[in-house]
Amino acid sequence: MNLPQPLQELIDQFESLPGIGRKSAAKLAFYLLNVPQDRLNRFSQALTDLKVKTHKCDRCFNLTENKRCSLCEDEGRDQSLLCVVEEVTDLLVIEQTRKFNGLYHVLYGRIDPLNNLGPEEILAPQLLSRLVKEGGKIKEIILATNPNMEGETTAMYLKSKLEELRTKKSLDFKISRLAYGLPMGASLEYADYGTLIQALDHRNGF
Amino acid sequence: MNLPQPLQELIDQFESLPGIGRKSAAKLAFYLLNVPQDRLNRFSQALTDLKVKTHKCDRCFNLTENKRCSLCEDEGRDQSLLCVVEEVTDLLVIEQTRKFNGLYHVLYGRIDPLNNLGPEEILAPQLLSRLVKEGGKIKEIILATNPNMEGETTAMYLKSKLEELRTKKSLDFKISRLAYGLPMGASLEYADYGTLIQALDHRNGF
Repeated sequence: MNLPQPLQELIDQFESLPGIGRKSAAKLAFYLLNVPQDRLNRFSQALTDLKVKTHKCDRCFNLTENKRCSLCEDEGRDQSLLCVVEEVTDLLVIEQTRKFNGLYHVLYGRIDPLNNLGPEEILAPQLLSRLVKEGGKIKEIILATNPNMEGETTAMYLKSKLEELRTKKSLDFKISRLAYGLPMGASLEYADYGTLIQALDHRNGF
Repeated sequence: MNLPQPLQELIDQFESLPGIGRKSAAKLAFYLLNVPQDRLNRFSQALTDLKVKTHKCDRCFNLTENKRCSLCEDEGRDQSLLCVVEEVTDLLVIEQTRKFNGLYHVLYGRIDPLNNLGPEEILAPQLLSRLVKEGGKIKEIILATNPNMEGETTAMYLKSKLEELRTKKSLDFKISRLAYGLPMGASLEYADYGTLIQALDHRNGF
């Protein structure tokens, strides 16, 4: 038996989302058959509004409803510290720690030569021009890309570009990156070699 | 940091669905930020259309876009066999077996005294009036409610009502229910007592 087309269409839409299979998609659509129409309308409105009303901050490219994001607008934040992340989701997770009070720059991607993603595909030029424009305010740039091949490539590329800029424009900022090592709660027995090597290389006095 | 309101609203909508937690909801919303607007619009349209364009068949209460569902409209199906199910999803799973070629009646629920659901809360009266209206065409009614307390209660209630109707209206139909026993591929060792007792009680010649 064919399902009614409107029901099938909604199932197809759910199924096209990552991590939602055919059975879950059907379960969600059947569930929604039993909710009030105004809840469907609100859900529907949220979908059409999503991209129309969500913009990128014109300074750090974080998501915002306005021209500037709430982090850039917040003058209480440390204007001398800049954290460079691959995605907005990385920014969110760092914010959740409540341990970082500086500014951000979102790259929207990583350099990934195997997938034909070069430096032009990410917002690296925007980072460099921001540093020039904002003059000497920024004193430290933390490269918080992911600890994998693509993240490392991106960090190395940015490091060389930033060092070049620092010399050319006589700017004065440090470049740092997140510490690598064993995650809290891990057991040595199950750690991968890469992580163990990092943990040995960057061992601390105790 | 607060997320932009349109993004947060969509996350909230996803999170309100069964089986979708906070993290998955955020993952889905961030994913949708990167799809073309027309895909968002189609998803949105599917949500608003869902209930507006999906109706219950005026005979068996299966879901349909029209007055009658495709199963009731199909004259090739056995008009003498009627399968009573709790939900449309049960009907779908029976259809998927391709082993049943009769008609259906969907109850939309079960009798569940602990949750204050009586016979009035399900489409039981509609089943009885359909039998009267359609006269003697139906020769067997399969009560395919779920094999649990509520399904059993519902089947017992329907059985007594159907027997009463059969006498009163001099109708001539059998009442049956699905076979209970061990599921295919099960191991005796892990079967629950209830299932084993059913399997013993309803043992077959071999």
